[in-house]
Amino acid sequence: MKKRKICVVIASRVHYGRLKPVLEAIKQHPNLELQLVVGASALLERYGNITQMIQQDGFTINETFHMILEGENPITMAKSTGLGILELSTIFANLKPDVIFTHADRFETLATAIAASYMNIPLVHNQGGEVTGSIDESVRHAVTKLAHVHTTTNAETSQRLIKMGEDPKTVFITGCPSIDLAKGTDLSVTKNVLMNYKGVGNSIDITQPYLVVLQHPVTTEYGNGLQQINQTLQAINELKMPTIWLWPNVDAGSDEISKGIRLFREQHDPPFVYFLKNMHPEDYLKLIANASCCVGNSSSFIREGSFLGTPAVIIGTRQQGRTKAKNVVEVDYDKQQILDAVQAQIRHGKFPSDTMYGEGNASKKIADILATCRVNIQKRIQY
Amino acid sequence: MKKRKICVVIASRVHYGRLKPVLEAIKQHPNLELQLVVGASALLERYGNITQMIQQDGFTINETFHMILEGENPITMAKSTGLGILELSTIFANLKPDVIFTHADRFETLATAIAASYMNIPLVHNQGGEVTGSIDESVRHAVTKLAHVHTTTNAETSQRLIKMGEDPKTVFITGCPSIDLAKGTDLSVTKNVLMNYKGVGNSIDITQPYLVVLQHPVTTEYGNGLQQINQTLQAINELKMPTIWLWPNVDAGSDEISKGIRLFREQHDPPFVYFLKNMHPEDYLKLIANASCCVGNSSSFIREGSFLGTPAVIIGTRQQGRTKAKNVVEVDYDKQQILDAVQAQIRHGKFPSDTMYGEGNASKKIADILATCRVNIQKRIQY
Amino acid sequence: MKKRKICVVIASRVHYGRLKPVLEAIKQHPNLELQLVVGASALLERYGNITQMIQQDGFTINETFHMILEGENPITMAKSTGLGILELSTIFANLKPDVIFTHADRFETLATAIAASYMNIPLVHNQGGEVTGSIDESVRHAVTKLAHVHTTTNAETSQRLIKMGEDPKTVFITGCPSIDLAKGTDLSVTKNVLMNYKGVGNSIDITQPYLVVLQHPVTTEYGNGLQQINQTLQAINELKMPTIWLWPNVDAGSDEISKGIRLFREQHDPPFVYFLKNMHPEDYLKLIANASCCVGNSSSFIREGSFLGTPAVIIGTRQQGRTKAKNVVEVDYDKQQILDAVQAQIRHGKFPSDTMYGEGNASKKIADILATCRVNIQKRIQY
Amino acid sequence: MKKRKICVVIASRVHYGRLKPVLEAIKQHPNLELQLVVGASALLERYGNITQMIQQDGFTINETFHMILEGENPITMAKSTGLGILELSTIFANLKPDVIFTHADRFETLATAIAASYMNIPLVHNQGGEVTGSIDESVRHAVTKLAHVHTTTNAETSQRLIKMGEDPKTVFITGCPSIDLAKGTDLSVTKNVLMNYKGVGNSIDITQPYLVVLQHPVTTEYGNGLQQINQTLQAINELKMPTIWLWPNVDAGSDEISKGIRLFREQHDPPFVYFLKNMHPEDYLKLIANASCCVGNSSSFIREGSFLGTPAVIIGTRQQGRTKAKNVVEVDYDKQQILDAVQAQIRHGKFPSDTMYGEGNASKKIADILATCRVNIQKRIQY
Repeated sequence: MKKRKICVVIASRVHYGRLKPVLEAIKQHPNLELQLVVGASALLERYGNITQMIQQDGFTINETFHMILEGENPITMAKSTGLGILELSTIFANLKPDVIFTHADRFETLATAIAASYMNIPLVHNQGGEVTGSIDESVRHAVTKLAHVHTTTNAETSQRLIKMGEDPKTVFITGCPSIDLAKGTDLSVTKNVLMNYKGVGNSIDITQPYLVVLQHPVTTEYGNGLQQINQTLQAINELKMPTIWLWPNVDAGSDEISKGIRLFREQHDPPFVYFLKNMHPEDYLKLIANASCCVGNSSSFIREGSFLGTPAVIIGTRQQGRTKAKNVVEVDYDKQQILDAVQAQIRHGKFPSDTMYGEGNASKKIADILATCRVNIQKRIQY
Repeated sequence: MKKRKICVVIASRVHYGRLKPVLEAIKQHPNLELQLVVGASALLERYGNITQMIQQDGFTINETFHMILEGENPITMAKSTGLGILELSTIFANLKPDVIFTHADRFETLATAIAASYMNIPLVHNQGGEVTGSIDESVRHAVTKLAHVHTTTNAETSQRLIKMGEDPKTVFITGCPSIDLAKGTDLSVTKNVLMNYKGVGNSIDITQPYLVVLQHPVTTEYGNGLQQINQTLQAINELKMPTIWLWPNVDAGSDEISKGIRLFREQHDPPFVYFLKNMHPEDYLKLIANASCCVGNSSSFIREGSFLGTPAVIIGTRQQGRTKAKNVVEVDYDKQQILDAVQAQIRHGKFPSDTMYGEGNASKKIADILATCRVNIQKRIQY
Repeated sequence: MKKRKICVVIASRVHYGRLKPVLEAIKQHPNLELQLVVGASALLERYGNITQMIQQDGFTINETFHMILEGENPITMAKSTGLGILELSTIFANLKPDVIFTHADRFETLATAIAASYMNIPLVHNQGGEVTGSIDESVRHAVTKLAHVHTTTNAETSQRLIKMGEDPKTVFITGCPSIDLAKGTDLSVTKNVLMNYKGVGNSIDITQPYLVVLQHPVTTEYGNGLQQINQTLQAINELKMPTIWLWPNVDAGSDEISKGIRLFREQHDPPFVYFLKNMHPEDYLKLIANASCCVGNSSSFIREGSFLGTPAVIIGTRQQGRTKAKNVVEVDYDKQQILDAVQAQIRHGKFPSDTMYGEGNASKKIADILATCRVNIQKRIQY
Repeated sequence: MKKRKICVVIASRVHYGRLKPVLEAIKQHPNLELQLVVGASALLERYGNITQMIQQDGFTINETFHMILEGENPITMAKSTGLGILELSTIFANLKPDVIFTHADRFETLATAIAASYMNIPLVHNQGGEVTGSIDESVRHAVTKLAHVHTTTNAETSQRLIKMGEDPKTVFITGCPSIDLAKGTDLSVTKNVLMNYKGVGNSIDITQPYLVVLQHPVTTEYGNGLQQINQTLQAINELKMPTIWLWPNVDAGSDEISKGIRLFREQHDPPFVYFLKNMHPEDYLKLIANASCCVGNSSSFIREGSFLGTPAVIIGTRQQGRTKAKNVVEVDYDKQQILDAVQAQIRHGKFPSDTMYGEGNASKKIADILATCRVNIQKRIQY
């Protein structure tokens, strides 16, 4: 039997972290052949070029591409999407995949989905039906309407997809593959986890209590990023606890966040904060698994966090509407609220593991769906 | 009070035909300023460059743009979408509209919607909630998930949008503006209607019985276009009735259709068929209003056709699922079925007018919504 | 020894015709590996998709790409160049060639040259130093200034490159590879040469006297194409001799030329003209080798024509300044001049072969240069 | 008389600094209308967004555009050029300029030249005929071959253009407009010149002796940037003199240079260096006019420097071949050579002013040429 060619586009460090177990499962599936495309911020030094990391993990990269315009503003985010479609359509035309697997809700995802759709290539979408803030909310649902098959995190999101008019026969609850990695990895930390990463500031001892901060821009609130991040920076400055701070992603407003961080460093040069660009997915999981508290608006604090039970303080609107386990407390863009919530979460300590985002066996299920799904290229809403 | 700047992108002759009453209503609204952008196939001689027509109708064109890649295949359709986003984002950044109004389900629409969404510009979408075949079906619903406000054709489509999770407060039944033009125009034909258009073949006398044929490619059935159009061509060749045949739009597969038509002309040089590229919207309406039967898969045969009561034979899957009035008979890509159906429809003659697609007063309502709608840039699904 | 990877971009049927012997020579060279990229109008049905032809000739196509915007006007020609750079840079980044070989003076050539230059990939340019009209004149010399090595047609063009400031050590007289094909092919015609091509009109018997017409647009005279081609059409219509007419290339103004041809066909339906889109390079050579006269502005009438000795009438400015052999007569865009010149040329009959454009052994020389050239990536003008 | 519309594209802070006097002269010319387009790195916060500065100087910006891809590597530099052509062709099509004026040798210049050329818009190029290293060398000469009219710095460069085959009637010695600004500005410094700029590090007192450093990447030596800049950084670190360090431009390799600077700051946090992104052109001139020595590879140290007489140490190949006055000493990428040369230059002190790059009256001459030049759109090499 001819193997199905499954094309996966890795567009950022987070993409890779989440999809690594799926890539493994595809690679090992007897009826599948992996076509790995790496591009967008995954190639950029500024956001942590991860091509080497991917190759060291044993994957062969079939094609690479650039699609990110400088500016990190609403105009360039639109343009990057357009450029992504131009790039990916050529790559898909040359690789001729049987199925394209795409993930989540970013502009790279939308570019992938549009290229696949117009090219009549079956599209399997992961993480549909979730609810958040930012433009991701609209984009995720738009991608759902373009996708032929859906692999979802849980029954609630599957149900939402069906309500939206997707054919129930195309919706599969698999759990999120990010949980697979969390489950399959020894998450104990040793002093040297951070050794491999060249950050900025004084490195910290993560065998002692520490915080992790990751706050992305909210594109629909573009223009407010600087004042938003300042609240977080002031709270951290007051906490004076060892903190690992990860740089934001490439969304519109990223420069506002980065500027805030840089100004803060210039003014305060806080000896207790270590700034990092990117990490191996497993190391990142170790980091948040063992943190006293995670602070910001990264979905990983909610998703992987629910499974890991790490206390988290989620700031602002970016994750509004997303299903959350007990480990999460939500606060406004407000220094005092952040401060109070982090202190309360630290006092509370670890929460029990919750499997609302998956039980850790999603990748194998996804690979099986990719190998067997029968797609009707002509979609039709169910009502 | 500062007028709201409403940007409308006209991307094809059909776009213009449908939206002309809306452009008029915006232009005349005391609180609105029209920003008119014309591009894509609306600029191309091959598809009938309509810029002059638009200017002669009294509109000022603010900006023009090119976005169509040659090939008319699935790859270039994807690429044209990407290029459209690149072009439109620059234009929107320079025009700085308060609201963007977009229409229907084409790749130009998707490009408009994506540029608007990422740029945090309120997006009003017309014709959401309808159901068809082709990639348009997926794209229409994807655009719905990106749009902030919806102006719809009827209660059924409004209801569908709400089921899809749109906020009912953002969904307005206005009817389709294409009906406004049908209602507001004297549709009696005189011999000279066709005089202004340089077609190919012998011109025909449209005061005598005639057919209109317009059959677009179905992108999700790319590769079958030639054999599909051949069935229609053979049926028409057998009918030997005066026929006005309009060239297909710019979708993937357009070249297959055009090739079929050209080969047919080479072989048969049928003296009773007149091939036309584009017409004034009003003249096009006259044409279909007075036809003995309309044949093909144009939505105008269903939409404007329902109001006009012109018998129509709809071929294949492109309009599958779309609500249809009694004037429509559906057949397969099959010469004999087409032949039988056209003959039966001619025998039946005109149908009573049906207002399922609107009562002819949509444009004014749409302009009022554009003038007054309050948009929450951050969308959120309602369940 | 590791083989040098030589990337060649084939962007049109003419490109392919001219470069086929070079592709062969690279393929057979012990120290070279051919990376074949096919795109632009070479993929378009309208201009004669030649991918199948290339594969049937035994070449493996590594990557394909689209870059042509519809419109065939000055704006879209600029945009196609830009898009070509976007496409080719990704392809070059993935193929990682050691050397890129490019040809002539078209916008696809310029796109190739710019991508190569900025990517620090050694660029070998063929046909530099020639002189013509149209924008090709400027583009050819611009490409020269970007290229690291030059393979030229003759001593005159080599001398011109050196005058322009190119390092003499980088300029090699090889002759034009198009002559190789002319020399290496049995050019006798049989009735069935045209059998494999689906043209428009009545096929003609090329064992009897016939004309070949090929007239491209002149981009720097954009807007005059229709009236220019009309002069030629009227002359041909008066000659009433069997004529094979080839459609123009994709340059700005192409639609003007095509429109003129189409209107002419509608009005006159001349039974003695057969319209063709594309041919196998060898068949095209047979065609012009045996024509009574070639008419238009194709460089092949001058270049291959000099070697073949076929009488030619060159119309207008497109080839102004180009070195010509005795087989060429130049006339203005003027029906009477064309008519008189064609009749005089037919009366004259064949001219002796002239090797001013090469002796038929260029490809092997070019392959050797590609295998051995040592390139200084940093260019510097020589004065 | 209808004013000629002159379009100028400002693509970076340096562009603006050099062309400001020309913009003024166009604005004030009775027969000219200025169409000002601002984009590329001129819009980017990272490189110092200068739109506000331009508007505060009294200019109206007609259109803005984005064209820079992230990566600052050879692939993205090619892609940025392609994207620039896509953007500028639309802008030119909408602005319909009579003449486009472009400057120097950057990828934004090349994009401008290509769009203008294919669109048959007369192109006037400034600074042709100069000689340097980096890819700029090739690009500058390629732009020459596309330009219709040339305004040059001096007799030597004019002569070079004519040798390259440009028509002498199209070559005008005007001097470089950058000298106009140097001549027309009071260059005495006061303590507060730096007050308006938010740099990084401790501000310095520029009424006391100081150095200026500006070192751009050399694209043709991509991959060596980090080790090149380290030599300069070490030399400066040893000199321990107050230093104003300007960030590099957006060329391929920029990230290497920036990374070197950032690592240096992390390690040494030198209290005597102040890092700045962008300045008002006049303030920049004050800075270099009063520096004890300028260090790096900026052409301003040679061009404006010749007029100002400021001692300069030029490092590496970027300015190789460029005509230099006595104020310049050239050294290799070598800490010790840099150190020695800077110390020698400081000991020497100011040099006499040299007018080899102009006498300070170029802008008026350029405006007159723009107003009166008669362009033959069809170029032809002169031999």
